[in-house]
Amino acid sequence: RINSDRLWDSLMDMARIGPGIAGGNNRQTLTDEDAEGRKLFQSWCEAAGLSMGVDEMGTMFFRREGTDADALPVYVGSHLDTQPTGGKFDGVLGVLGGLEVIRSLDDLGIKTRHPIVITNWTNEEGARFAPAMLASGVFAGVLEQDYAYDRTDAKGKRFGDELERIGWKGEEPVGARKMKAFFELHIEQGPILEDEGLDIGVVTHGQGLKWLQVTLTGKEAHTGSTPMPKRRNAGLGMARITELVHEIAMDYQPDAVGAIGHMEVYPNSRNIIAAKTVFTIDIRSPDKETLDEMDARIRDGIVTICEALEITAEVEQVGHFDPVTFDETCVKAVRDAADRLGYTHRDIVSGAGHDACWINRVAPTAMIFCPCVDGLSHNEAEEISKQWAGAGCDVLFHAVLETAEI
Amino acid sequence: RINSDRLWDSLMDMARIGPGIAGGNNRQTLTDEDAEGRKLFQSWCEAAGLSMGVDEMGTMFFRREGTDADALPVYVGSHLDTQPTGGKFDGVLGVLGGLEVIRSLDDLGIKTRHPIVITNWTNEEGARFAPAMLASGVFAGVLEQDYAYDRTDAKGKRFGDELERIGWKGEEPVGARKMKAFFELHIEQGPILEDEGLDIGVVTHGQGLKWLQVTLTGKEAHTGSTPMPKRRNAGLGMARITELVHEIAMDYQPDAVGAIGHMEVYPNSRNIIAAKTVFTIDIRSPDKETLDEMDARIRDGIVTICEALEITAEVEQVGHFDPVTFDETCVKAVRDAADRLGYTHRDIVSGAGHDACWINRVAPTAMIFCPCVDGLSHNEAEEISKQWAGAGCDVLFHAVLETAEI
Ligand SMILES: NC(=O)NCCC(=O)O
Ligand SMILES: NC(=O)NCCC(=O)O
Repeated sequence: RINSDRLWDSLMDMARIGPGIAGGNNRQTLTDEDAEGRKLFQSWCEAAGLSMGVDEMGTMFFRREGTDADALPVYVGSHLDTQPTGGKFDGVLGVLGGLEVIRSLDDLGIKTRHPIVITNWTNEEGARFAPAMLASGVFAGVLEQDYAYDRTDAKGKRFGDELERIGWKGEEPVGARKMKAFFELHIEQGPILEDEGLDIGVVTHGQGLKWLQVTLTGKEAHTGSTPMPKRRNAGLGMARITELVHEIAMDYQPDAVGAIGHMEVYPNSRNIIAAKTVFTIDIRSPDKETLDEMDARIRDGIVTICEALEITAEVEQVGHFDPVTFDETCVKAVRDAADRLGYTHRDIVSGAGHDACWINRVAPTAMIFCPCVDGLSHNEAEEISKQWAGAGCDVLFHAVLETAEI
Repeated sequence: RINSDRLWDSLMDMARIGPGIAGGNNRQTLTDEDAEGRKLFQSWCEAAGLSMGVDEMGTMFFRREGTDADALPVYVGSHLDTQPTGGKFDGVLGVLGGLEVIRSLDDLGIKTRHPIVITNWTNEEGARFAPAMLASGVFAGVLEQDYAYDRTDAKGKRFGDELERIGWKGEEPVGARKMKAFFELHIEQGPILEDEGLDIGVVTHGQGLKWLQVTLTGKEAHTGSTPMPKRRNAGLGMARITELVHEIAMDYQPDAVGAIGHMEVYPNSRNIIAAKTVFTIDIRSPDKETLDEMDARIRDGIVTICEALEITAEVEQVGHFDPVTFDETCVKAVRDAADRLGYTHRDIVSGAGHDACWINRVAPTAMIFCPCVDGLSHNEAEEISKQWAGAGCDVLFHAVLETAEI
């Protein structure tokens, strides 16, 4: 078993960097805080004797050699970036869990045949630069590197420029590495494991996602002196589309979800009818057909709503991934490890997107979930127990050990 | 008649200060641009031999002496502040129209028995600091001066501090001045005069208004992994209340209007259910009972909506004025002036709030509207013709002359 106290201490040390305002973290990708977090992680990995590689997307790789120089490495990891009001565990657990696996192997004097590599994927969250899972997407060949560099944040700063600015643009070509397998430990970010009192989620599938960024254009006008029938209200349009997305998601739930979390209003003055609104629709389903059907219904609904209000809409897909089926062998390694260790578990579908969802396209991949309090995530109050973290990391340890071979 | 070329030139000169991004103006109250606009206006007034007074709310008064030292002055004016994406005429026409009246009197060598005072009321727009018509509200004794000083903008800056910072906090107690009458020339900000091809609106009434600032509190959660029934979505709540306000306004229109132009979402990330939204409901009617009924229906609706979504609401009234009936004698002076000058006109209700609405409580008051293109206002594309401005100012000139007595 791994050392859950040491794992916990590292989690708490990392949480000191980029503190939030309510006990969580604001360590958004490619900020100064991200750079500081990377440095701390680097120092720990180098102290453990690992050698670093950094690719052109800024993804970090730390390698522990195996006994067979020709054997493909087993990868473990996740991401250190957070939401603007994020928790201490989303992503971080998977990276520092990987480090704990290495530290435990060292404690026990275990050498594996295959090398083991820990990764920290750049911009998993997608909060600052859409889409999410950007670096793993480029690694898997699903997204273009130039497209990634050209992503801009709300202030108009480019991903490529910010990556150089914080000094973490590496020289290694993205996606050049071959993997025997990839394992990602992550908090569930949903309520199922906690509700059912289980230790471990064996992730068999991941939901597909679409992000549709909508720009509505109406006409700025005075809220007091413009007669109701003369208004072209882009704010009202956004409100109706918000309800539409909710209704459509309710039609398909529990096999789908949908919401709008990002909304901007221009000029955003109390006595001006909104001339423009920009917002992002987030829809997800483990079933590709359902996702496509929702997408089509939403686009139709937008046309109808805009016609009625005499406003115009532009819809741009700013994020997308298909539902994922993880690798049977890797999933079995996770399930067997949980059984062997005596942890209670169930098979589960990931509601969130993860780097593992992209890597699954280029390498055999699986994920391990541990519960989180109230299913809460993307919230500074995100919480897990030391025991839950330890159990998840134990399972990671055993799955990696089995795959990397002694 | 006044000199419409000179009036137009002054309007265009003022529009150079605090230019917008689309041909209009961004000269919000108590910004550096506001200070610069005040300085230019001061230089013009001093060149016309007027003496300045500034009160503790920063309102500017420029006085032309009358022949009778004991006679109460006739006031004319409006405001020089603009919306963040405002036009060149909203407010400015009334202030510079007042200056043009004085310049024309000087040209013609006319002395009046009553002094004439031009005013620039501070923070009419209410875009930066709610509520609108703040300084005239304090002048009329409807709002407390301390309350006004404590208003904060979106960045948390206090009205009182910003007034000192730009150097326009005067020493004159607010509301000490007594007026024989107050006349405000303003663009209609609605489509009626242009639609009917008329030169002048004789404003007999003003709509009442309520601004209700609503804060909804839900719970931050992941958009992907939080089951639909577990969400407490403050963004969805805002959407439903936006629709509710629209529906209620449609029930009463054309005798009421209602909309939400100001909306904020926290944390405003694509994959986070909104934990908090803050927005301002703007409802108006010329009929007080209708306004109260709308207010009550909206508050009831908010409770129902929030219960269904398991979110909470706080509702704070951040602006309010009752419907206004302007002074009969002053209104007649405006109507007679339009007749005498041969301008086509109609009686009209003001859809927007104006400083005149507050001043009407402490002095006989009337307003003059001129048409604006497409009824458009609170928009950089706000437009009027030189002829329209000139006709409005001619009527102002004659109404003032009749009231100030030769
Ligand atoms: N795990 C996680 O929160 N990833 C961000 C992408 C998503 O919204 O699912
Ligand atoms: N005239 C004008 O736009 N005043 C601002 C207050 C209001 O919203 O009516």
